[in-house]
Amino acid sequence: MAEETENIQFELTDDLVNQVESLIRLNRDKELKNFLDDFHYADIAEILDELDLEEAMYVIKLLDSETTADILMELDEDNREKVLRNLSTKEIADEIGELDTDDAADIIAELPEERRQEVISAIEDEEHKAEIKELLKYDEDSAGGLMAKELVKVYDTWTVAGCLRRIRGQAKEVTRVHSVYVVDKQEKLVGRLSLKDLVVAKNEQKIADIYISSVDWVNVHDDVEDVARVMQKYDLEAIPVVDNDQKLLGRITIDDIVDVMKEEAERDYQLAAGISQDVEADDSIWKLTRARLPWLLIGMFGGIGAASIISGFSDAMDKYPVLLMFIPLIQATAGNVGVQSSAIVVQGLANDTIDGKILSRLLKEFALGLVNGLAIAAIVLLISHFGFNTSYFESLTICVALISVIIMAALIGTFIPIFLDKRGIDAAVATGPFITTSNDVFGIFIYFLIAKLILGF
Amino acid sequence: MAEETENIQFELTDDLVNQVESLIRLNRDKELKNFLDDFHYADIAEILDELDLEEAMYVIKLLDSETTADILMELDEDNREKVLRNLSTKEIADEIGELDTDDAADIIAELPEERRQEVISAIEDEEHKAEIKELLKYDEDSAGGLMAKELVKVYDTWTVAGCLRRIRGQAKEVTRVHSVYVVDKQEKLVGRLSLKDLVVAKNEQKIADIYISSVDWVNVHDDVEDVARVMQKYDLEAIPVVDNDQKLLGRITIDDIVDVMKEEAERDYQLAAGISQDVEADDSIWKLTRARLPWLLIGMFGGIGAASIISGFSDAMDKYPVLLMFIPLIQATAGNVGVQSSAIVVQGLANDTIDGKILSRLLKEFALGLVNGLAIAAIVLLISHFGFNTSYFESLTICVALISVIIMAALIGTFIPIFLDKRGIDAAVATGPFITTSNDVFGIFIYFLIAKLILGF
Repeated sequence: MAEETENIQFELTDDLVNQVESLIRLNRDKELKNFLDDFHYADIAEILDELDLEEAMYVIKLLDSETTADILMELDEDNREKVLRNLSTKEIADEIGELDTDDAADIIAELPEERRQEVISAIEDEEHKAEIKELLKYDEDSAGGLMAKELVKVYDTWTVAGCLRRIRGQAKEVTRVHSVYVVDKQEKLVGRLSLKDLVVAKNEQKIADIYISSVDWVNVHDDVEDVARVMQKYDLEAIPVVDNDQKLLGRITIDDIVDVMKEEAERDYQLAAGISQDVEADDSIWKLTRARLPWLLIGMFGGIGAASIISGFSDAMDKYPVLLMFIPLIQATAGNVGVQSSAIVVQGLANDTIDGKILSRLLKEFALGLVNGLAIAAIVLLISHFGFNTSYFESLTICVALISVIIMAALIGTFIPIFLDKRGIDAAVATGPFITTSNDVFGIFIYFLIAKLILGF
Repeated sequence: MAEETENIQFELTDDLVNQVESLIRLNRDKELKNFLDDFHYADIAEILDELDLEEAMYVIKLLDSETTADILMELDEDNREKVLRNLSTKEIADEIGELDTDDAADIIAELPEERRQEVISAIEDEEHKAEIKELLKYDEDSAGGLMAKELVKVYDTWTVAGCLRRIRGQAKEVTRVHSVYVVDKQEKLVGRLSLKDLVVAKNEQKIADIYISSVDWVNVHDDVEDVARVMQKYDLEAIPVVDNDQKLLGRITIDDIVDVMKEEAERDYQLAAGISQDVEADDSIWKLTRARLPWLLIGMFGGIGAASIISGFSDAMDKYPVLLMFIPLIQATAGNVGVQSSAIVVQGLANDTIDGKILSRLLKEFALGLVNGLAIAAIVLLISHFGFNTSYFESLTICVALISVIIMAALIGTFIPIFLDKRGIDAAVATGPFITTSNDVFGIFIYFLIAKLILGF
């Protein structure tokens, strides 16, 4: 039987896509259905992402709604939007009927405003409908926006045997049972049990006697990033969500948190690289341009600003042309130091390891900048003196400027993210091109200012 | 009872740390133990990370080894190393006895070579010892290096009742039971069962009749990043690990994968910011300098290279000083475009969404560079002409250079990560300062080359 187990390494090949396309073209429905049945829905979604819309719709209409609902959730967001636009209200409602409440609410939230009500009204299961409507009330970045209503709940007054009997019914609707949540008569969360505990316990025992009262929970209004941090810190696989009265409302599972973490990491990475909206290598040139051009424009204005500064010191250009050769060095160093400093602060803020002591942190960055600056200035001093025949004062200018610029860049790179964070702005925007651009301009200004002081033009 | 449930929001305050410190100073052991008993081990680890070594050791010796073993795993790596150095071989072996095999092997792998054998020999439980020794054989970046030996395994010939009875024994040793793995007589993985399936099934049924034969697995030598990708894609909470003969060796749980993902994201972020080793804001100035100076030096050599290029075009400097003012603009733009391009490629490679077609990707970047370049050049043309009184040919030079540099930076930013990836080198190193520095130098060279062609000095 071992041959029947699946290897995890699904590979999306051109051959595979061609095969599916030709089965569609030839209308060989039965063969196509059998062929796709062997794949996981996440793999089918990957295949559909490669097809054009008409072909994808063909496959979606062919498969049963239980599978297509799962496939829908895994499609690329752009493609999902197109597919949904091509499905009738009734079809969408059927798909949603197959999904867990959290996924169902996400799909509905993606629909255009005017279709939402229609689709909700078309959901047949009244309980499912009411639960989805409840979830849609919560902010998408809150625990409520991420939780599902599906969970296994028992009352503390039940016995183990009665409990097992009853949760058999509940458990059928819950894909994965991590914990059985124990509530009191007022539906307030009082503790938890693992299925393991139930299996190991004796039939006649009361739940009240065996449940574990130490249970972690989050409030329905907590921020998802905080939920992610907590679940990761305590190695939780699911966490119950309660309202302000401690009433059990839903639960969040780790697979959703994994997605949140991944999205967050990708967004921070792109922000640091100066990409202003979520894009992939395969997106259109137009979408990529919209994501990339804004930061390039800011960089451009920085460059123009630097040009104005240099033109303001045009005396220096005439008398000490060698100084101009070192502009790229000053600029590159300022940019690199700034990005390093800000990246460390942004990460520290994300991990909650940075507290509010701005002053001590700035002092540390000052010391760090001094150490790095002295090391680099010493090397540059040697190279500029012997390699570029700079005069003693010119060399001194370059070195003092380098050290000052490194310290300034470290301070700006540290201060700005902390400042933004205190104002409630995501500090991750303050890395990459933002820091680089501000440091470029400041750096060049400081360079010429120091040149003026030392060389006196 | 609701008041007994824990709120997840543990906050590490100075007050809390002071309280623990004063209890230590006064040797009020019993009070201290009671006080700490209320906290999760991960929270106690956070408190210990704030104490000095002597105080931390005091707490560790005070608490029982079951708790301290978990605390040890959560400590900062540097602090754990210090604590381990202060524990006897016997003490470490006792801690390890309390840990799951995967954590135990991780701790032993962190010990200095010469202590490892001693500690392993001192582990009392022979089975635990053998399992840890097995895990230590695997590469730390492989599935084998991440898996634990703890799992619940049943044979396909058993009945549900027999199975429930037997897994009660096994389950006690396994913190969380995600799946029950079904093996045949040769210990080969043939399928899986969830505890839910067992609870729902009838006692007299045979496992062979109820198990699900479609089970995902990974090979013990698979790369952990691949394991992470698979578990995320298929929303798995645990995955069994097999050898080349399909024999069941262990299992990997999602909490370990969450840690891997987080480390990976942080490392990529730091690499993109030009930080060459894992550091935190609270690390020492010396450690931070070692992580930051290497890239600053590379940037410095880039800056010196740019200086040489400029000095090689010193004719231009004399005749067209206005060109020099736009060096920062050219350089900043080249750097920004390069970082954007490389970040998108690095992410695509990490997500496995980029295939090998380098040429078509470069063509796309070329088109993208052209669009962005034209947009920026048009604005710069207006500003330079009216703001800086540049001549017609000077303006043309700046604009043509900008477009060329943007295209070149986009191509370099795209090509280098793909090239490195093909050679088996982590593409994430090819972002940030690496791309910025190479683009700085190339960009300035192209700028002056184009100036020479157009202005002919």
